[in-house]
Amino acid sequence: MTTSNKQILLAEKPTDKLSVDHFKLSEGPMPAAGDGEVLCRTLIISQDAANRAWMQGKTYRDEIGAGQVMAGGVLAEVVQSNDAKFSPGDLVEADGGWQEYFAKPAKELQKRSPHDPLTNLLSVLGVTGKTAYFGLLKIGDPQPGETVVVSAAAGAVGNVVGQIAKIKGARTVGIAGGAEKCNWLTSELGFDAAIDYREENLFQALKEKCPDGIDVYFDNVGGDILGAVLFRMNMHGRIACCGAVSQYDTGNPAPGPRGVPGLLVTKRLKMQGFIVMDYYKELEKAEADLTQWVNEGKLKVVEDVLDGIESAPEGLVGLLAGKNRGKRMIRVAEPSS
Amino acid sequence: MTTSNKQILLAEKPTDKLSVDHFKLSEGPMPAAGDGEVLCRTLIISQDAANRAWMQGKTYRDEIGAGQVMAGGVLAEVVQSNDAKFSPGDLVEADGGWQEYFAKPAKELQKRSPHDPLTNLLSVLGVTGKTAYFGLLKIGDPQPGETVVVSAAAGAVGNVVGQIAKIKGARTVGIAGGAEKCNWLTSELGFDAAIDYREENLFQALKEKCPDGIDVYFDNVGGDILGAVLFRMNMHGRIACCGAVSQYDTGNPAPGPRGVPGLLVTKRLKMQGFIVMDYYKELEKAEADLTQWVNEGKLKVVEDVLDGIESAPEGLVGLLAGKNRGKRMIRVAEPSS
Repeated sequence: MTTSNKQILLAEKPTDKLSVDHFKLSEGPMPAAGDGEVLCRTLIISQDAANRAWMQGKTYRDEIGAGQVMAGGVLAEVVQSNDAKFSPGDLVEADGGWQEYFAKPAKELQKRSPHDPLTNLLSVLGVTGKTAYFGLLKIGDPQPGETVVVSAAAGAVGNVVGQIAKIKGARTVGIAGGAEKCNWLTSELGFDAAIDYREENLFQALKEKCPDGIDVYFDNVGGDILGAVLFRMNMHGRIACCGAVSQYDTGNPAPGPRGVPGLLVTKRLKMQGFIVMDYYKELEKAEADLTQWVNEGKLKVVEDVLDGIESAPEGLVGLLAGKNRGKRMIRVAEPSS
Repeated sequence: MTTSNKQILLAEKPTDKLSVDHFKLSEGPMPAAGDGEVLCRTLIISQDAANRAWMQGKTYRDEIGAGQVMAGGVLAEVVQSNDAKFSPGDLVEADGGWQEYFAKPAKELQKRSPHDPLTNLLSVLGVTGKTAYFGLLKIGDPQPGETVVVSAAAGAVGNVVGQIAKIKGARTVGIAGGAEKCNWLTSELGFDAAIDYREENLFQALKEKCPDGIDVYFDNVGGDILGAVLFRMNMHGRIACCGAVSQYDTGNPAPGPRGVPGLLVTKRLKMQGFIVMDYYKELEKAEADLTQWVNEGKLKVVEDVLDGIESAPEGLVGLLAGKNRGKRMIRVAEPSS
């Protein structure tokens, strides 16, 4: 076993757009598992827009400080365990960060069952897929024939939201950046329509492509797109607030949407933020449904995997610029068995 | 019976602050009840901040156009009925507008039981009290020991919200304009604390007066106050969006709160707009609860009644400037019996 631990640090906190220069490759010491702790070897790093938000301040987790190992969800393999619940070779999910090895208290690890391919455990069967599942079904609650709009629709969460909305019988419209992505959403993923927010006038496009208004909006981006969608929402519409990626990677966040709270009152809208762990009691049901839809061919799994821990900074910067399609991950190592 | 019908018209639509000059007193013809219609005599006009919002465009009702009789909820007495469900002398509630007489289809009238004093039918037992009741209990759902904040707390809805929150065992903080109102909220109505938004730094005051954060915010005002409260909300907090009075009486509405949607996600907040009629199935329960609390002395009824239909323009302009305390109404006529 190697005794060094390749890590990527957040060398400097971004004040505006994140670049690869904010990160630094480092060789840390091999961590050791203390009492009740588990030593893990990182297999795959999950990359998420929320990683950027974590640099801005305390959210549902602590802020990432300059000089710290960059945080991030990972799939890992247990190397050595000082807790009876874990054994070497076990697969676990954790906020392991961008490093080859980490040691964590057992209670911060979640055991995962093997799956082929492993990447699915971080995409459709991971936080990503479950975020789409719970946000859409628990907050959006789309009914057959209703119109569902999702932003960042070609992204990791967005593409799953759109596909689940179709499974539930809703008319589904995706908002994405670029004609190529939009074309892919309708031709490959079964979206009923797509809007290229970079080229189209949003107000006009939403009117044309949502002729019956919008009943459910799954918001990944906030900002101007949220502002425009609010005006097209139907009475008693529901907005699942999943993220605000348009506001993460900038030093100059936009003001809030003008329709808040006025349009919420006149249209009696509900806007609700959530994260997956709010629904932890139903994680198994979500995983079972998602697995079934994948097996039935109703839900296509879209993954965007880069190789090598060194590619993590470029991977996240690209993600924030919308360069990914589906779930972006960094493959750090192969499982030992 | 008189043959003339005194009316107040919205002579001109305001583009900025509403003034009494936007209204015109007029003598209209005595209306007649057509087939299935009911002729009514206005007793009391309800004045509400929403009246101003109706001038801005279509909301949950049609926009009020220039030259039309000013719209408004009223308590009235049936004079003549062409519908079997109503008889002369019946008390009814309707969007009768600012006029002495009106004729409406029977289905647009809601029968009310006599009550002493009659004004209570438009205050605590009217849309006002029920708005406070449903918004606070159905959306806010305050638990004993939680902190509830309400804006426009000395207003018609706000004072009832604060009192119900106390009945439910919550710590209650009101936001109002002026030291006198704030003092009244704590000394007379039982609020635990009050914040004078005109004099105090909101961020600082919310921190001091809500040391455990805010679990429920009943928002009557929108704008900067909503923006400040968002930063002090606790995880899984609930915001009942009742109105945005800070945005109604201006030609230059503020941008939306910066915390939307970012803080909604990180704190998993719910914001929901509503109007009383969303809960029409539970109106009787609401009325029974409100009546009981009044009878038990737990809920003080605060009314602010002006006399004569001619005082309606000044009444509404003053309401929008925060000159009322509790429910503002215009007494137009005494009941005939």
